[in-house]
Amino acid sequence: MPKISSKGKLMPESPIRKLTPYSESAKKKGLKVYHLNIGQPDIKTPKVAINAVKNITLDILEYSHSAGFESYRTKLSQYYKHQNVNVDFEDIIITSGGSEALLFALGTTMDQGDELIVHEPFYANYNAFSVASGVTVIPVTSTIETGFALPSVDAFEKMITPKTKAILICNPGNPTGYMYSEEEMMRLAALVKKHDLFLISDEVYREFTYDGDVHYSIMNIKGIEDHAIMIDSVSKRFSMCGARIGCMVSKNKEIMSTAMKFAQARLSPPTIEQIASEAALDTPKSYFDEVITEYKDRRDTLISELNKIEGVIVTKPKGAFYCIAQLPIDNADDFAQWLLEKYQLNGETVMIAPAAGFYSTPGIGLNQVRIAYVLKKEDLISAVQILKEGLSIYNSKQKSALLHI
Amino acid sequence: MPKISSKGKLMPESPIRKLTPYSESAKKKGLKVYHLNIGQPDIKTPKVAINAVKNITLDILEYSHSAGFESYRTKLSQYYKHQNVNVDFEDIIITSGGSEALLFALGTTMDQGDELIVHEPFYANYNAFSVASGVTVIPVTSTIETGFALPSVDAFEKMITPKTKAILICNPGNPTGYMYSEEEMMRLAALVKKHDLFLISDEVYREFTYDGDVHYSIMNIKGIEDHAIMIDSVSKRFSMCGARIGCMVSKNKEIMSTAMKFAQARLSPPTIEQIASEAALDTPKSYFDEVITEYKDRRDTLISELNKIEGVIVTKPKGAFYCIAQLPIDNADDFAQWLLEKYQLNGETVMIAPAAGFYSTPGIGLNQVRIAYVLKKEDLISAVQILKEGLSIYNSKQKSALLHI
Repeated sequence: MPKISSKGKLMPESPIRKLTPYSESAKKKGLKVYHLNIGQPDIKTPKVAINAVKNITLDILEYSHSAGFESYRTKLSQYYKHQNVNVDFEDIIITSGGSEALLFALGTTMDQGDELIVHEPFYANYNAFSVASGVTVIPVTSTIETGFALPSVDAFEKMITPKTKAILICNPGNPTGYMYSEEEMMRLAALVKKHDLFLISDEVYREFTYDGDVHYSIMNIKGIEDHAIMIDSVSKRFSMCGARIGCMVSKNKEIMSTAMKFAQARLSPPTIEQIASEAALDTPKSYFDEVITEYKDRRDTLISELNKIEGVIVTKPKGAFYCIAQLPIDNADDFAQWLLEKYQLNGETVMIAPAAGFYSTPGIGLNQVRIAYVLKKEDLISAVQILKEGLSIYNSKQKSALLHI
Repeated sequence: MPKISSKGKLMPESPIRKLTPYSESAKKKGLKVYHLNIGQPDIKTPKVAINAVKNITLDILEYSHSAGFESYRTKLSQYYKHQNVNVDFEDIIITSGGSEALLFALGTTMDQGDELIVHEPFYANYNAFSVASGVTVIPVTSTIETGFALPSVDAFEKMITPKTKAILICNPGNPTGYMYSEEEMMRLAALVKKHDLFLISDEVYREFTYDGDVHYSIMNIKGIEDHAIMIDSVSKRFSMCGARIGCMVSKNKEIMSTAMKFAQARLSPPTIEQIASEAALDTPKSYFDEVITEYKDRRDTLISELNKIEGVIVTKPKGAFYCIAQLPIDNADDFAQWLLEKYQLNGETVMIAPAAGFYSTPGIGLNQVRIAYVLKKEDLISAVQILKEGLSIYNSKQKSALLHI
């Protein structure tokens, strides 16, 4: 039998995949499982997007332009301009999700064995895309104690080698909810200019900012136009995760013409979902006001409930809809499995994402979990209550097991 | 300014991309351009697929399973069974087009510098996907004189090195329209068994076969279940190129679980287009009967018209909707540009795809073009007439230019 590739072996599994069978059997036993583990919002997709799909007038479902419909790219550039991000339609390539945009960005800028510095904890799939692209991830670690703030320039500079080609950030961040300040962005900008690196910024959560903080895009930084590559997506913005429509944005003409060769090879992004995404740009501001009020409310509820649990450390996220919580346990993998396999509170339990998969450095984050606040407030309250009771029983069992040794 | 990757530089451009500006200016001058260069059919998408889109009842456009909706995979496996291809839904991963399926297949089986043997001329984007995956294409050349039949086993064996991991075929073939006989498939099967290689077969044109020839899938070959990976797509089958829905199919469990890690990283294929593709499986047989009659008619018309031109060599394609034609010229790139830039017949001209981009061996196919028969019969007749007159004028101009030197 022929062998699979080393690359295939190296590809990481999803951090929650091994938990899925336990979640499925819990459900088969009749338990209700609160999913704190996933980033699939329960917010409705804007009607204007759904209606555009219902009203399509196509006879032939044809390819679009490899860079996406020009009408969509033009409207998207106007949307960015309203956000004070000054880009033209030529600076945008529409992709199959933010995922493909990141693959194009890595393929365009990095070769086999090149190094990508990433601020950890980070979105777990950055590891997968790096392996798929032959790129080595070099983590720069931030800690829960500092609220996952950007590490010092020194910490980054120590990691730079002749193989370093780019720094990748997610802003606001999945899984931390951290949002970079203007000052931090300027520090990163100075760093990539000094060392002639690319700065890739995943900004798919740009609208989800709370407490009046203003999101600062890399596309707004003067002097790094040739360094900056923005990754974006409609998935979270319009609760359209299934559309798989994203984009890669850069003012660097050589980057964009090279990325176009990757785009042409796969012909085009999906046509109907582009029509939906273009229509979604007409979503009224009131939709976002409501959604952001809802998420803020959920965040405040979640953090306040988590803070009631003894031994839990959590930082209030400034944006996106995740937080990292440190639990009074040793092994979040074991605890997450135990919750699904052996625990219930009145017929209910919770599924959480162990955070180790969001770090590249081995052995970090073993007692942390990522919690997504994409559930209704009352569900979040119930879920955290289960977590609290569960923690107490799990820890007393651990203790009693130790006593019996 | 930071540098783009060597991979990015190596990525090939689309063989027709440099002609696009000439086609656009021809249209701006008011000329009608017959597009013989593209594989976008003018056939209508089945109503059942379009209606499924119009009738969606979603409130939230959610992710699907990373392998695609189970309902779709199940129905697709039934569809294959009707075609005597015995696969279960677990053997199928739904992808963003055949393109992503091929990327998953290459990533799962091949590492940087590994070698992929491809029967040339081949679909030009195989080069691009290989570069993107760090894979080296090793061509085995077939010739127009033999109708692009499979070269001898010897020709393949000569190319096999310790780095060879797979053989890739397209059946029926783009750009040749060649369809492998059962005997040829058995030869390939014996070869991959003997050398423990994977056999990747792109079968997106499986329905488009003429003259009563039966398509022979690699999934039907006993004894190579662990070697065989099939690439498929709805694009041509249902004239749904813009759906970007394809699939990767294999009975090899290790291959599929590894490919799933690539699939999970990019989360899911597009949701609405999957709904359309699932519905398309209910397309009545009469649709295919009509479409295949239409293509057969177009093929016969095209070949008979091309054969009327002196000096043109062309083989009747057995499947798909392309042919390679050898023209009485030296440089198809120059001729194709001349047709768009300097020629017209009663306000009309044609766009053809120079065939060199479909070869990996440099210097081959310079006097060949790929012609797609995706236009109506009367348009094909007009287009070939323009080609004929154009050839005659182009060649007399070349001759007179030579005389003036």
